[in-house]
Amino acid sequence: MQTLQVHTPGHSYPIHIGHRLLDNLAELIRPHIRDKAAIISNETVAPLYLAPVEAACRQLGIPFCAIILPDGEQYKSNESLQQIYTGLLQHHTDRRTTLLALGGGVIGDLAGFAAATYQRGIPFIQIPTTLLSQVDSSVGGKTGINHPFGKNMIGAFYQPQAVIADTATLRTLPPREFSAGLAEVIKYALLGDINFLAQLEHTMPALMQQDQAALAGTIRHCCQMKADIVEQDEKEHGIRAHLNLGHTFGHAIETQMGYGNWLHGEAVAAGMVLAARLSERKGYLKTADTERIIRLLQAARLPVSPPDFSADTWLAHMQHDKKNQAGQIRLVLLKQLGQAAVEAGFSREDMASLLQSV
Amino acid sequence: MQTLQVHTPGHSYPIHIGHRLLDNLAELIRPHIRDKAAIISNETVAPLYLAPVEAACRQLGIPFCAIILPDGEQYKSNESLQQIYTGLLQHHTDRRTTLLALGGGVIGDLAGFAAATYQRGIPFIQIPTTLLSQVDSSVGGKTGINHPFGKNMIGAFYQPQAVIADTATLRTLPPREFSAGLAEVIKYALLGDINFLAQLEHTMPALMQQDQAALAGTIRHCCQMKADIVEQDEKEHGIRAHLNLGHTFGHAIETQMGYGNWLHGEAVAAGMVLAARLSERKGYLKTADTERIIRLLQAARLPVSPPDFSADTWLAHMQHDKKNQAGQIRLVLLKQLGQAAVEAGFSREDMASLLQSV
Repeated sequence: MQTLQVHTPGHSYPIHIGHRLLDNLAELIRPHIRDKAAIISNETVAPLYLAPVEAACRQLGIPFCAIILPDGEQYKSNESLQQIYTGLLQHHTDRRTTLLALGGGVIGDLAGFAAATYQRGIPFIQIPTTLLSQVDSSVGGKTGINHPFGKNMIGAFYQPQAVIADTATLRTLPPREFSAGLAEVIKYALLGDINFLAQLEHTMPALMQQDQAALAGTIRHCCQMKADIVEQDEKEHGIRAHLNLGHTFGHAIETQMGYGNWLHGEAVAAGMVLAARLSERKGYLKTADTERIIRLLQAARLPVSPPDFSADTWLAHMQHDKKNQAGQIRLVLLKQLGQAAVEAGFSREDMASLLQSV
Repeated sequence: MQTLQVHTPGHSYPIHIGHRLLDNLAELIRPHIRDKAAIISNETVAPLYLAPVEAACRQLGIPFCAIILPDGEQYKSNESLQQIYTGLLQHHTDRRTTLLALGGGVIGDLAGFAAATYQRGIPFIQIPTTLLSQVDSSVGGKTGINHPFGKNMIGAFYQPQAVIADTATLRTLPPREFSAGLAEVIKYALLGDINFLAQLEHTMPALMQQDQAALAGTIRHCCQMKADIVEQDEKEHGIRAHLNLGHTFGHAIETQMGYGNWLHGEAVAAGMVLAARLSERKGYLKTADTERIIRLLQAARLPVSPPDFSADTWLAHMQHDKKNQAGQIRLVLLKQLGQAAVEAGFSREDMASLLQSV
């Protein structure tokens, strides 16, 4: 097991990463549990991994309840949030209850936001079971739900007591979701570290076969990168916005196609290609750089072209992005491979002409 | 105009109190506004005071929108919250928008929670227009909404950029709501300061006639007391719980009678009498102390007896209280006039026997 410590103002918490950590879950959660636990999971993950989490609670002798939601990005909604609140109240949970979020990014974001807002805040632990949530969404304290008008529009910054990433749970992940997780891994390689990019091109075949050592090392590297960024900028006033590379385009794809039809990572993959092409047009990247990005995404079996909809449809979605200021769309671009920057002043003409180039 | 400064970890903000502050609102909000403003108010307050707030925005040259909700505690709900989110998105507000909460405690709690959670947090300013919200709910950063199973069950601790309490707005407050605000004023007198209690008994007739000097002085005293408590204990781990004197009983009354039928302050008044009677039964207060409390509440034209429902009904509501730990009901009692303490171990028998004594 490897453990990172994340420091944010007023709070510090561990990320444990390793093979079969669920077998020893009681010891890992013991320091963070008080009177009671409430497990939040979904109908796909619960049959696979609820039993070891319940066993850990029993081993610690603490009462628990489980609230099981339907599976899918379309359930990262106000309705699911209300279902969690109602379940917590029906089970008479109070401020000394710890929430355990067992599942992927949707469960982590939903349960984290429920923890942030139930009785004005109760402790929670992330137990991510997808690659996407292990490398990205369980680190950094962003919690929230979607609104019919836009993704992640409602939420809070709220840090967990601990993150427990068991790489063995990735064996049960559908290949398409595993690939979607790799999109965020590739994003980290494009953001900060040209050596990591080269290393990733080398280890991608091993990752695709779920080599446990390659997985643990890669997840640790991404978590460390994200933790470093979050420690510098918890509330996204500056550098943390770089983590949104490909996401403004990606969110537009997800919203337009209907949540759940394109996986988040798939939309981000196509979004990163758009961001790279735009960076090319601005004279920052070479065509060879974009092609290198496309090859790596393809090695991870990810889409590299966006779905077909009009420039106006793109812009209507992109106008709701949280990075925007004074009505101007702001995008994360690549000044070069390994170096991102936020730029403003993206127009309808830019979008129309960009669409013709992909 | 009097100004207090409230300090909480990582944030400090002013409370301005005075007569006709809305006339000079632009200057008071100028330091806290960036690109845009969104005014949240209700159908009762907007016709009276929306115009000066809009005028202040115009004077500062910033675009604004107004989201007007129905009036009443029953609208401190998830539905109203969604209405705010949808309005904010329809008006393309982003993270540089400041929310202005114009109204009583319901609007302050709702708009504050919307500000805490819209795009993971945007700045907001409280402009309380009721006595209750001026003395109590606009200070301290508690925001939130009700759940059908219990009051204030969903929320966040989130501090405003500024509080602007214009005592002239109290002239348009219905007498019943003005009295309800005095319930919280009386609560402060019972909690911390026997001199303030004596002074309040003396000035109650002047307050009932809305003498402006008496009002400003009293509001300032209550805000200062609350600010001192919140500075010591923002997240209610200790002394802040004392501010819930009368509230556990009061919340049960509000929930059982249906939100809005008993005003919050009325329910708290009857709740404080129950807390006082219970404190008597524990040997803390003398009967004369309780009678002194009752006389002061009556001078403010507040109810001093709870509505009639069974011990089991009381307990069913009280079991959801946020102060509870390990399933035990915890109540704020008075060890003596001016000194509160939280005590656990309140049983069905205690409730039944207490009800027979009132």
